[in-house]
Parts: sequence; C-alpha cells; structure tokens
Amino acid sequence: MALEQSLALLSLAETNEKAIPTKSLVFKPKTAKTAEPVPVIVFALKETQTPSGVIAKAAAVKEPRLAKDDLVQEFFATSAKEFTIANLDKKQAGKVKIIIDKAIVDAKDEDVFEISSDSAKVAVSAKNINAFLKGTDIELIEVDFALQASAAATPSANANAAATSKKEALKKEKEASKLDDAKLVGVTVDKSKDFSTWYTQVVTKGEMLDYYDVSGCYILRPNSYTVWETIQDWFNARIKKLGVKNSYFPMFVSAKVLNKEKDHIEGFAPEVAWVTKAGNSQLEEEIAIRPTSETVMYPYYSKWIRSHRDFPLKLNQWNSVVRWEFKHPQPFLRTREFLWQEGHTAFLEKAEAEKEVRDILDLYAGIYEELLAVPVIKGKKTENEKFAGGDYTTTCEGFIAATGRGIQGATSHHLGQNFSKMFNISVENPEGADKERCFAYQNSWGLSTRVIGVMIMTHSDNKGLVLPPRVAQNQVVVIPVGITSKTSEDQKKAINDGAAEILKRLVDSEVRAVGDFRDIYTPGFKFADWELKGTPFRLEFGPKDLASEQVTAVRRDNGEKITVKLAELETKIPEILDDMQKGLLDKARKDFDEHRVFVHEWKDFVPTLNSKNVIVAPWCGDADCEDDIKDSSAKKNNGEDEQVDEKAPSMGAKSLCIPFEQPALKSGQKCVKCDKDATTYCMFGRSY
Amino acid sequence: MALEQSLALLSLAETNEKAIPTKSLVFKPKTAKTAEPVPVIVFALKETQTPSGVIAKAAAVKEPRLAKDDLVQEFFATSAKEFTIANLDKKQAGKVKIIIDKAIVDAKDEDVFEISSDSAKVAVSAKNINAFLKGTDIELIEVDFALQASAAATPSANANAAATSKKEALKKEKEASKLDDAKLVGVTVDKSKDFSTWYTQVVTKGEMLDYYDVSGCYILRPNSYTVWETIQDWFNARIKKLGVKNSYFPMFVSAKVLNKEKDHIEGFAPEVAWVTKAGNSQLEEEIAIRPTSETVMYPYYSKWIRSHRDFPLKLNQWNSVVRWEFKHPQPFLRTREFLWQEGHTAFLEKAEAEKEVRDILDLYAGIYEELLAVPVIKGKKTENEKFAGGDYTTTCEGFIAATGRGIQGATSHHLGQNFSKMFNISVENPEGADKERCFAYQNSWGLSTRVIGVMIMTHSDNKGLVLPPRVAQNQVVVIPVGITSKTSEDQKKAINDGAAEILKRLVDSEVRAVGDFRDIYTPGFKFADWELKGTPFRLEFGPKDLASEQVTAVRRDNGEKITVKLAELETKIPEILDDMQKGLLDKARKDFDEHRVFVHEWKDFVPTLNSKNVIVAPWCGDADCEDDIKDSSAKKNNGEDEQVDEKAPSMGAKSLCIPFEQPALKSGQKCVKCDKDATTYCMFGRSY
Repeated sequence: MALEQSLALLSLAETNEKAIPTKSLVFKPKTAKTAEPVPVIVFALKETQTPSGVIAKAAAVKEPRLAKDDLVQEFFATSAKEFTIANLDKKQAGKVKIIIDKAIVDAKDEDVFEISSDSAKVAVSAKNINAFLKGTDIELIEVDFALQASAAATPSANANAAATSKKEALKKEKEASKLDDAKLVGVTVDKSKDFSTWYTQVVTKGEMLDYYDVSGCYILRPNSYTVWETIQDWFNARIKKLGVKNSYFPMFVSAKVLNKEKDHIEGFAPEVAWVTKAGNSQLEEEIAIRPTSETVMYPYYSKWIRSHRDFPLKLNQWNSVVRWEFKHPQPFLRTREFLWQEGHTAFLEKAEAEKEVRDILDLYAGIYEELLAVPVIKGKKTENEKFAGGDYTTTCEGFIAATGRGIQGATSHHLGQNFSKMFNISVENPEGADKERCFAYQNSWGLSTRVIGVMIMTHSDNKGLVLPPRVAQNQVVVIPVGITSKTSEDQKKAINDGAAEILKRLVDSEVRAVGDFRDIYTPGFKFADWELKGTPFRLEFGPKDLASEQVTAVRRDNGEKITVKLAELETKIPEILDDMQKGLLDKARKDFDEHRVFVHEWKDFVPTLNSKNVIVAPWCGDADCEDDIKDSSAKKNNGEDEQVDEKAPSMGAKSLCIPFEQPALKSGQKCVKCDKDATTYCMFGRSY
Repeated sequence: MALEQSLALLSLAETNEKAIPTKSLVFKPKTAKTAEPVPVIVFALKETQTPSGVIAKAAAVKEPRLAKDDLVQEFFATSAKEFTIANLDKKQAGKVKIIIDKAIVDAKDEDVFEISSDSAKVAVSAKNINAFLKGTDIELIEVDFALQASAAATPSANANAAATSKKEALKKEKEASKLDDAKLVGVTVDKSKDFSTWYTQVVTKGEMLDYYDVSGCYILRPNSYTVWETIQDWFNARIKKLGVKNSYFPMFVSAKVLNKEKDHIEGFAPEVAWVTKAGNSQLEEEIAIRPTSETVMYPYYSKWIRSHRDFPLKLNQWNSVVRWEFKHPQPFLRTREFLWQEGHTAFLEKAEAEKEVRDILDLYAGIYEELLAVPVIKGKKTENEKFAGGDYTTTCEGFIAATGRGIQGATSHHLGQNFSKMFNISVENPEGADKERCFAYQNSWGLSTRVIGVMIMTHSDNKGLVLPPRVAQNQVVVIPVGITSKTSEDQKKAINDGAAEILKRLVDSEVRAVGDFRDIYTPGFKFADWELKGTPFRLEFGPKDLASEQVTAVRRDNGEKITVKLAELETKIPEILDDMQKGLLDKARKDFDEHRVFVHEWKDFVPTLNSKNVIVAPWCGDADCEDDIKDSSAKKNNGEDEQVDEKAPSMGAKSLCIPFEQPALKSGQKCVKCDKDATTYCMFGRSY
C-alpha cells in the first residue's frame, strides 16, 4: 500500500512545499482509577483551533487533556512529540478514538497534507490519508471545529461549561505567563509563572539537551557535557588524592547476582531493564542492565580481598545506569538512562570508612558550591529515606527557589557490613586465625548529571541559561559592535581586527573565549543568542572601545557593564569571571537562607510550605510520625485518578535531611507534629 | 529441598575446610556438522585424573574436548569457568550425559564435598549431591577413573588409541610450553608456545582485567583503565583543537530508527541486544542497545543543521557499545560490551571531510605509536572490508609478532553522502535557493579498548605485563633492598627512610611512583610481583646505594640496570622512562618490519604466511580475487565441525589494508593470485 510506504519514510522524506500543515494530538480523558483510559486522537489542520470542550463533547468523554509521554508511549510506543497518525494501526481499534477535522475529510483527493512530528515531516495526499485512517478500523469522529467552537462559546449549548471555564482560566494563566518582549527563538514564558515550560525551553533552546525518540532518554549536547567534563576533572583529581582508582565494570548483571541482596534490589526491581534477545535469538537467561553496581562489583571485591593487606580497596567508575521509571521524565532530574560516577570502597576499620563517607560528601558539596555555584545543606537521611541495604546515608540537599522545592543533590552511603556479609568480603583476623574473621566496612557514593538540572533551575532566567563561569563551555564571547552603513572600511577593519586580537589574547591566556563575527546578524540578535546559551560575559568592542583602548564586558546574570582596559585584559577578565562565580553563589545562598524557615508548631507548617519554603523543625525521629507529616501536608485529591500537575503544590513534605549543623534543642521541646519529645531538628520540604 | 537451597547459596557460603575438593567439567565430543552436540559433564574429585580417552570410552563419544564458553553458555547459561553441577536440572535430561567419579558415588552419606566454580565455593554432603544428580533425570555414567586410566595406557585395551596418543602429544606440547622457573603466582606458560593461555594469564595476573559472570563481558581494573584514561586525555586535547566537542547520546535506539540505513544495519543486526522488559512489564516496543551510533545521532544532525552556517558539526562521545557476538570472546579484542570513542562529523565540503578522515587516522596512529609504543601501518580498507554504508574506510593496522597475525587498530570512515541522504542532513544551497540542496559529507571514526589488548600482546613477556611508561598506572616502584638479619636498626631505618625520600621526590616531580615497603615479603617476591604487573622500572635502594648516594633502576623490558645519582633523580628518571618508551616502539617496529614480507608469486604466499608473516603483494583490486586469496590460503578441514584451535593457522589471509605508502608497481606486474594486472600493493594476513 503506497500510503504505508510513504509513512514508513516519515522523518526521511523532504516535505512538499505546497502541503498543508496538520497536527496529530493525543488527549487523555478523565478516567476512573479502575478503568482503562481511552485516548482520543485529534487529527486536524495545524491552524484549526481544537478546544478541549469540543473534543469532550464530540468523543463523549470528560475533561480531555493533552496526554503525557507515558500514556503515548504505552499506546503508541513513541513520545508525545513524535506521535503522528502514522503510529496508528489496527491493533488500536476499539482502544482509541479518532477525531478528524472536517476540513481534511472534505479535502479533494489530490490535496496534499503535511504530517509532522517534532523531528520529521512527510507529505501525503488527502486520498491516501483518508484511506489509511479508515483502514485502521478505529472509530472515526468527524468534527467541524469552526462550527463547534462557536457553539461551545455559548454556555447553554455546552454541557461542560464549568470545565470549559476552568480551562479558560488555565489558558489565561498560560497567556499571563507569556513574556511581553519574548522572541520566538528565545524563552517565551516567565520562570516565576510557568516554571515547567520555562525549564523545557531553557534546556532545549540553551542547547544543553535535546529530546530523544526513546521516552525518558535525552541527548547531552556539548553545552551540558562540558559541565560534566569539568566536574569529572575536578572530582577525579581529588578522589585520586584519596587513593581512589577509576575502573570499569560491565553494564550487564545476571538475575542471580542482581537478586542476591534482597533489601537492596527491592528498591530497584520494578525499574530494571532486561535484555532477553540478541539478534533473533532468545537468550537462555535474561540479563539486567545495572541500575547501580553494588551487586555487579562486590562478588569481585570478595575475590580480590584476600588478606588485611588488600584493604582499603577504593574503586570508582564513570558510567551510565538505567532505571526504567514510569513516572513523568524530566530532563536531567528524572531520566531513564543517566550518567553518574559511583564509588565503592571497602575498609578493615569502621572509623576509616566513616571518615571517607564525610570526605566524599564534602567533595560533593564542593562540586555544587565551587563549580556550580549552588549552595547545599549537608546532613543525614532519615531511616525512611536512606539507601536500602546500607547503614546510613549522608546527603547534600539543594533548593529550587522558583518552586520552593528541595532537591537531593548527591548521596554518600555507609553500608556497614551488610553487603560484606552477603558477598563474603572478609579476611582472616590480623590478630590471629583463631579469632573471628573480619568483614569489610563498605561505602558507596554517587553523583549524577542531575546536578546540571539543579544548576540550570537555580541560576537561569527569562533570557535563557545562566552558566557559572567555571563550568561554562564558553566563558566569554567577543562581539564587534557599532558598525553601521556609515562606518568606513578602515574603521570596520580596525574594529574586527581588534576584536579578533582580543579573542586571541584571551584564548592564549586560557580563557575559554569565542568570537561571533557572523556579519548577517545584528549585534542585538547576537546578544540575545549568547544570552540564551548562558555565556557568562559578552565583550563588546566598538568604535569607542577602539578609541579608548578598552573593551566593554557585559555580565550575563545582572547585565552589569564593566570597562576593561586592553592592557589589563589577561588579568581583569579572570577576575570578573571569578566575581560572577561568587555572585551567583551568594545570590543563590541568600535565596536558600531566606526560604529555609524554622517552624516549631504544626499550625505554621503547611502555610510556610505553601509559601515556597523548606522547613527546619524539631522532630521526634519516629518513622510513622515522618509519614504522618507527609500525609498531613499533602493536598487531598478527590479519589479519582487525576493527573498531578507538575507545578501544583499538592505533594506532601518529605524529610530532606537531618542537617549536620544542628541548632540546640530547647529542653522539653516537642516534635512539630506529635506529642513526643523532639530529638533533633530535621529539614522537611516538598521535593523533586 | 535442602540441596537446592545450598546450591542457590553457591558463591556466597563459606566453604567447609574439611570438604573434599571436586571439579565439574564440560566436554564437547566431535560431532557431525548436521548433528546437535551432546555435552558430557565430568564430575570428579579434583585430584582425579580424567583423561579424554577414558571419557570417550565411558560416554561412547569421539574425541571429547573441553567445551568453550559458547557451548557452555548455550546449554547451561553460564561460562565454562563458572560451570558447576549446580547448573544442571531436568531441562537438560536427554541432552547431556554425566560421568561421575566412582569415588564420589562410593562416599559415605556424611562425607562433604566442595563444589567450586572460578569465583565461588560451597560445601555439600555426598548424600545431597547424589540425590540431586539422580533428581535431574540426566543419564549418569559411573566411572572408576583410576582403573580406566591404567587400562587406557595399554594400547590393545583401548579402541581410541590413536586419538589418545594424539591427545598425549598435545598434552606433551602443553607440558613443553610450561616455564621451567614458573611460580604459581606468576605466568606459568611460554608466550611463544601457548600464546592463548599466556595471554589469559598476563591480563588476569597482571590485574588488567578480570573475567565476569556474564560471558563476553570483562572488568577493566585500574591497571588497564589508567591506559584508557591516558588515551582519553591525549585524544581529547587534540580533537578539541580540531573543533570537535564531546557530548553524550542515549544507549537505546528504537527499532524503527535502527533499521533506517539498511546496508549499515545488515552488518550489526545479528549482534544487537534487545531490551524487551522493564521490571515485570513487557515493553510495547522492543528497544535496541546501540551497536554504534550513526542511526542514533543522525536524525538530530538533520534537525540541528539548518543552514550552511551550522557546518561543520563535529561531535564525539566516549561511551560503551554492545555487540552480542557468539564467537569465542577474547579479553579486550572481542567483547560483548566495550568502551570506545565514536566521532561523527558533518561538513559542507567533501574536501574538508576527507582531510579530517586522515587527520583523525594520524591521531589514532599517534595513540598507538606515541602512547602504546605499537607501530601501525596506515592505509585504506578494500571494498570487501570497509564499513558498510560508508564511502571508504581508512585504518591503522597492527601486527602481533607472537602469532604472526595482523590486527585492525582503529578506523576512520568517510561516509560520503550516504547517511546524509537517508537522514536528510541538508541545507539550502548557499549559492541560491533555486540551486539543488546540499547534502552533508560525513565522517565517523572510532577507537576502542581493543588497543589495550594489542599493546599487551606486543610488549608483554613470560614474566608478565610490560607497560609503556607513558600509559603505566605506576611508572616506577621504589623497593628497599639488602636488609638482612644482620642489618643494624640504624642502617635499616636509613635504607627505608632513603627509599621513602626517593619516592616523595619522584611523586613531587610528577613521576607516577609507588613504594613497596611491605616487610613480610622478600625483595625477590616483590620484584616478581611488580614485574607481573608491568611496572616499567623498579628502583632498588640498598646499603651500597645509600653509601654511594644513588639508586639502582632496573628496566622491566630488558632487565638493564642503570645507576642514578640521587642528585640527578628528577632529571634522570624521566629520561630513562623516555628511553624505555622509545625502546619498546623500536623493538616492536623491527618485529613488524621483519615480518611484513613482499611476495610476488602465489607459490610463496602460503609458506610466507605460515612463517608468521603478513604479506605485501601486488593485487588486481578485484573483490572475487580477494575472496579467492582468503579461501586458497586457508587450511581445509575435513568437513566435520571441528572446533578451530585459536592458535592454529587454519584461517585464510584477509586483506588488511592498501597501505598509503605504496612501492612503485613494475610495469606489467601481475596480481599475486590471478592473471589480471596488479593495480596496487595490498597487505594481507591472518588476523584477529
């Protein structure tokens, strides 16, 4: 069938310039928890307005909303952005409905439509499209949107009037979050009003990352990978001084080995990806992709550690791990494959191991504060929140001021002897073979590319990314300015040569500098472009600068203009880069400090939380009380399976950590929630 | 059942010290090509001699040989080293046979045996073992090996006398390859006589790598990972100067995208590992693990390259890829997961792209020659051997003198416009929108951890690893010597302090130095230990050195002793490290030069090949002729499915490359094989 072939070529074929653009959308209706949702596909002209009220009525469903990736993935094995009607086939008959724009049904056979996904386009004739859709045997509902939309505007004609006006309110809110001076190439929404859309735009338009056609996986582009490489270099230098060596263990782990440590695997089992086939052959035994490497590595620790002289064993690896989460993925923060380092160390003495746990945590805090300019609070996780299978977990916790939510930064675990006893990592007692064997004390610690997401959320703004100078791929961009049609050729050459010379001097002095000499763009366009990509400084070099032997540096985060004498270029630029690095950290620390609020009485807890704060409160230390705090601070929903809006502060407050820096507890101080005595201050918050 | 539980604990439980060691072996009998082999399991006391003649007779099979990993994997889903009788169950009934040592059958119920695999041990009672084996319903054959062995020694009593004497000859050869002065901790076989066993011992005992419980996957230990990190630093610095940027693309690729480029995928399809399950959920669409990333990356190249100003796009990534080969795996050389870098670049101009192909190839040759001290020949692959889907492949080819086989070092491909046309990586013609669109000219280039294997095979010897100084984790080890029972405490302290001071000075001057101050070992033991691990120099510091203010440096590869005045330590040590680096390359180059032989007539071809050479010969350039050369230089087998001995020079000669450096062809020179005119010199050889 010719159409199927055309569709197979989707994302390959050149689009026909006369083709009429269309859109393929997937909606999920409100569905009772016990029922299977029936997605509604809307296939319409791109220009057709397709309000959800009209869809609700036509498909006889409640409150259809644009479906998220997990649903689209489940039904059509692709992401929402990549979905088109080409993903439909007979298998879905009876399980989905299609609403088709009357304008397409009524088209002439030879009219050509463009079917497009986020990454691809194809041109197909109306005849072929209509034949294809009929061939799927899926229920087709023809809708004249133009007519229906006007009808929907009349309350009496619309059974879903209330829902619609709620929608309208939301739409208005969306409208309100639009930036007044937004250009389409730049960020178009306000960070403070629609954080989730803002974040997606900043990470993609800032060229940190791109979406990928396997849901939950993302491409790390050079702008973000440079941050990761900088972290690698910084951390490698420091752990090597601690005697840690890098190595690489396989990504695969057999089911037998994976399941060895029960407490540990329980947390990961639902998220493990399994390889069951190679080529066309079914594997005899299914093989897991590591979600973390404790069980991959420790059988070999047992083999390699033969005597007390083999201690300490300190290995680290930089690798990727896979956790096939079904929750809504989020760039950097929750991804199915992610890059990290995982360190695994074994000691004879508990004290040595415990010292290392804290040494590593300090390095993690260093990565956040020194490199990423993100302040963190160090502390210990509660029993509820610690790494399963370990003795205790230390953590550094960050804070996203824009949403008022906490975020786990990186964790360093003391595993005690739990794993060493399971895997028999033991040696003869150095005090004599007749004494009990000594089992290793172990640690594991990991930091992932999530740090990049935290950094972006913290510093970036409505102009786009803001990168701290120490991790920026390009620290400065040199741009010639002030060239107009009246500028003489000599003057123009002098400005361009001067800018090129500045660039060369900076590169020679190891500042990561680039130049933007593209002559088809105006300086204004270039400014916006480099701001979007987060470059810490732009150096403008124009006629006035040329005359005064200077360059004008404009700082990305606050727009400050600094005049730098050319004679001082090599010393001044590193200085102002350092100033900006420090300024970013100071500002973020102020935000965190102002939004970390002491609360001693339960009545203040939820209101404080709702004002975008995290809370430090006296607490009894009881796990049930912790659960109670979480439940009591969550907004209740009505019991139906309503999708949680990412932005909505509906979730309860988790314990984030018990900070190492503890204020003194007053004698007789009660727990913030229950009537037991408080034993410690604990930090609580809604979190990522 | 208690036994099954015991067996499930295999690799965890402590072994009972009174348990009697056993062995579990898998043999594959000679089997006609059309028949399914029936493996024979031998379960015997460790001390029992189990000659294959006896096994042949008892199981009524021909020429049983120890089975290789692929067979063991197929039948028992584990590697040969990890196989034990615990892997047996009812599923194998009728498909395998078990020969059991009479000594085990006759044991008392309460006798305890130790069942062990390479990485694990468990103690089980005779009663439980015998009950377990009966419970599998597999045919059990009881053999009194002691009795049979003596019978087998009498030719008339043995129908397989000829086979046995062949075995004996092989056994004698194995015996002959044993090193006279071998210690068990060191390498025990001769590189020149049993290369395959030697290599396994060197990589494992030299702590470069360890075997892993998923067949074909290996653990890269710090000794080898350091080599890889050194390569990364060297290569990153140079490609960044060429404008290449690092990035990271997901390891997963959807079937749809993977299959887009047909020529390309054809080569990989049988080796692709598929993820079909997450947790307990079947995935809607199976997802492949990348065997290489052309199809992963190029849809995004198409998206990112919008105008001619977006050229060139030059991305590289350091990642792991998976090719689920069913051939016999070999550490570093053929592994199912391996680390590599893959660069993917796109240009507007063909000439620019072609220049980069060669620039990168030069860097690859630099990694081999400058870092790994391994000489390579640069050239172009023939059409038969090039990367499928590309226009042409350039390569650097190495040579393993010990086996006389060539080895592909790293390849840099010019893809032409094949992929850019498939993935629509194109821009509007800069000369005008009315001109034809311009499709990108692309390259891809990759270098993997295989380089480490080539380095090991080239330099290492019967004492163990030899690491070139530039890539050695530890470049020198400082060892105090000459301390005897008669040494005074003062003298002893002076020697130890002196050695520690030398170590400190070297570390401060950025020599990668370690000290070995373990006082329970003799200097001799330490020397052997550091030689095994390949450390380029040991610095001996004893009473004479103390008196003369010097240290004695002993070079790993040739045993040369060099006296270094302490005053000159910081300048001399780097010098002798450089000398050794150069010496290793010179020696390897001499070996390669002497074994790269010009052959002009076919009659000399196979004999020259059989003398462990690669051949440079005039060739017509015809693909059929190339196949003919390969067939004609292979030893024919008798048509039965005889397993190819890794060492046996039975394979035919492949074309390795058409060297860039070409001797002039004489006018009228014929092809070495056929009667056509030669068009070029081509390098042929047996290869890895």
